[in-house]
Amino acid sequence: MADWQEITGGVTAPKGYRAAGITAGLKPSGLPDLALIVSDVEAIAAGVFTTSQVKAACVDYCRQRLQAKPSARAILCNAGQANAATGSQGVRDANESAELLAKELNISPELILLASTGVIGQRIKMDALRSGIPKLVDSLSETGSDAAAGAIITTDLVTKSIALETTIGDRPVRIGGIAKGSGMIHPNMATMLAFVTCDAAVSPHLWQQMLSRAADKSFNSITVDGDTSTNDSLIALANGQSRTPAITEMGAESEKLEAMLTAVCQHLAKAIARDGEGATCLVEVQVTGTHDDLAARQIAKTIAGSSLVKSAIFGRDPNWGRIAAAAGRAGVPFEQENLQIKLGDFLLLENGQPLQFDRAAASTYLKQAATDYPVVDVVATNNSNDLSGDVQGQAAARLRSNIKTQRLDNPVIIAVSVGNGHGTGKAWGCDLSYDYVKINAEYTT
Amino acid sequence: MADWQEITGGVTAPKGYRAAGITAGLKPSGLPDLALIVSDVEAIAAGVFTTSQVKAACVDYCRQRLQAKPSARAILCNAGQANAATGSQGVRDANESAELLAKELNISPELILLASTGVIGQRIKMDALRSGIPKLVDSLSETGSDAAAGAIITTDLVTKSIALETTIGDRPVRIGGIAKGSGMIHPNMATMLAFVTCDAAVSPHLWQQMLSRAADKSFNSITVDGDTSTNDSLIALANGQSRTPAITEMGAESEKLEAMLTAVCQHLAKAIARDGEGATCLVEVQVTGTHDDLAARQIAKTIAGSSLVKSAIFGRDPNWGRIAAAAGRAGVPFEQENLQIKLGDFLLLENGQPLQFDRAAASTYLKQAATDYPVVDVVATNNSNDLSGDVQGQAAARLRSNIKTQRLDNPVIIAVSVGNGHGTGKAWGCDLSYDYVKINAEYTT
Repeated sequence: MADWQEITGGVTAPKGYRAAGITAGLKPSGLPDLALIVSDVEAIAAGVFTTSQVKAACVDYCRQRLQAKPSARAILCNAGQANAATGSQGVRDANESAELLAKELNISPELILLASTGVIGQRIKMDALRSGIPKLVDSLSETGSDAAAGAIITTDLVTKSIALETTIGDRPVRIGGIAKGSGMIHPNMATMLAFVTCDAAVSPHLWQQMLSRAADKSFNSITVDGDTSTNDSLIALANGQSRTPAITEMGAESEKLEAMLTAVCQHLAKAIARDGEGATCLVEVQVTGTHDDLAARQIAKTIAGSSLVKSAIFGRDPNWGRIAAAAGRAGVPFEQENLQIKLGDFLLLENGQPLQFDRAAASTYLKQAATDYPVVDVVATNNSNDLSGDVQGQAAARLRSNIKTQRLDNPVIIAVSVGNGHGTGKAWGCDLSYDYVKINAEYTT
Repeated sequence: MADWQEITGGVTAPKGYRAAGITAGLKPSGLPDLALIVSDVEAIAAGVFTTSQVKAACVDYCRQRLQAKPSARAILCNAGQANAATGSQGVRDANESAELLAKELNISPELILLASTGVIGQRIKMDALRSGIPKLVDSLSETGSDAAAGAIITTDLVTKSIALETTIGDRPVRIGGIAKGSGMIHPNMATMLAFVTCDAAVSPHLWQQMLSRAADKSFNSITVDGDTSTNDSLIALANGQSRTPAITEMGAESEKLEAMLTAVCQHLAKAIARDGEGATCLVEVQVTGTHDDLAARQIAKTIAGSSLVKSAIFGRDPNWGRIAAAAGRAGVPFEQENLQIKLGDFLLLENGQPLQFDRAAASTYLKQAATDYPVVDVVATNNSNDLSGDVQGQAAARLRSNIKTQRLDNPVIIAVSVGNGHGTGKAWGCDLSYDYVKINAEYTT
């Protein structure tokens, strides 16, 4: 099916990109906390940002930059402080960050985009940033993607990275991406950062359209706990260094590029959902039979976001009643006589009525989806007076060594049909475990 | 302020009502499971029901009955089986239930309303119901409210009951109510049943309007886990037995009656929120400064429903960042510079920026709200293969004896202002604890 292949290299897989990730001392833990992606030449830039009324300074900054001119040379990301709810001082800090980096890279500050993640209400530690930026620029490398991916995470247990390659006009074109997530992941761009690089040449308007549609089918279709953050940002650069002809209108080539962009975003989105706080498995909800795709996605997201469904999956309980109830309240009209629910290969409900099924086998099906991650005690001690917001980061770091690979190929699949319409949609989420509560009860502002 | 006083008697406090609750053998546990409320004379009847596309047979039944004629003599409620997703057989069972009771009461089946709560996908145990109904009618009593309140609960740890009295034209008028909740409690009529009786005389249209508005300010303003059920029903009778003049149009008297009706509904709604599965405290969110009341309630509900806010409260963490983030994503535009957040008497955020506050004292404030309920191990054993759905009911029953009274007078109060508008709104919820996950991971379909 897919017209591309996976390659290594993350955001530095496409031509003409370098990246870096260092420890600048923003996180008290001494873990990497400052990341940079640089394009050798000015790249077309597009972005999708949080819809929250409470936005971090970097979000307003990027929106203004991209509105003025949709291009960039660099993305700077700090972890540790969110620089949200920090008022005019936060805005000044964001501007200064861009100016410092611009000077070091010897480019215009207008070509720099910013992202922050960490504790809301805390300013960026500017002293650490000031001394970190020269070191960061010195570390830039054509194999620096993993270092950058490791410096943007907070409570994530694994780094998230992908790169795909296809051909356009017989020449290779690549898209790479890195992301961070964990907690507060919800439709409408949740607490997540994702940075995508591409070496195709594409017109700014088309690139933004592609990215917005890809975001709807990926990051806006995942949910961990229904909360949306102040800092969510998806930024995508396209620098044309593949030397393929510029894509300036819709057609076979733009569709090919958009499909690969969507695949990159979906991989990162699923990785974020799988790594939701306390999650033990990835859940994929597939909905068919609605009037249009939007309605199908709406039902899928409601099911994936239901605390009762998520708790049941954690309990390995094939609880079709909760799935039916979630589908019913999604705000999409359907006849309950047409409702069908499958869990993996198990048909649980047909014509709106429950069927006999092998409950033990269905429970085993749910169990097999949670074979990669250990269920772990993320919080070693109750540090509710620790203001650093870094307790989880430290605990997460201790755990990372236990996790070999994040498997995304064995999700729990819930397939729901609500009628004969042609609409289809998918959403991804995770289960709700004791550890979710533990992590979030003890993580301090 | 309030123009009424609390009295005893629940739904049998108003004149001309009797009630009963018995063990009919619907629940395998042998706990009470069949309840009945009867008005001596034909009463005006109004109802508000689940908006889910997947509805129990009793919900369709009541909607049709009330559409045909807004009056009733009796409300029959069974606990144990939800009779939802049971197809045409479920409809036949509902009709038969009404006919059986009508015969026993010697009235028309058209004057009977029905409600069910329990496991989705299970039919009512009709044999038990058939033999239970004569016994139920024999048990009817003018002091039967508590018995009825005890027979409609499932995982609830306490019964919910209230009665208020005021005067209209120098004569006493009373409104009583009982309710059940716990789990799946959310705006748009969540898994909850509430039955209200009143002895005023009021026109059907006005009574329905009053009830709909009262529901918006009470049951539709609470959230436990964001899930909405197939069976949610609020039914209110007004039988005129107070012999006060009929209220047929808006005015001082209708306002007085509506205010008391709203107070009854709010009491029951708060009791349901406080008793949310695994909850250790009641949370009240007060929002001001919006353009209108609807917007304020929308923000309040979003904050009260945020898993991150709820986890923080369980962790006794004065986490204003999560409150700000939830307010920001509620879908109501505001300037973040105008955002103010108070937790009890502690001002945490002003002009969109965090203030210094006594974190230890604020945490102590959160702790004092959880002094009545024990934090308990609700699920004694993992009975995930128990199909009765009654495991929780048994565990809950064991616990009820430990809980003296449910205090609703010491909620955690979160007060949020977003501007200078005149809109105000409240919502109620509870915290998110380990026990919520435990209960819902192990409760079987």
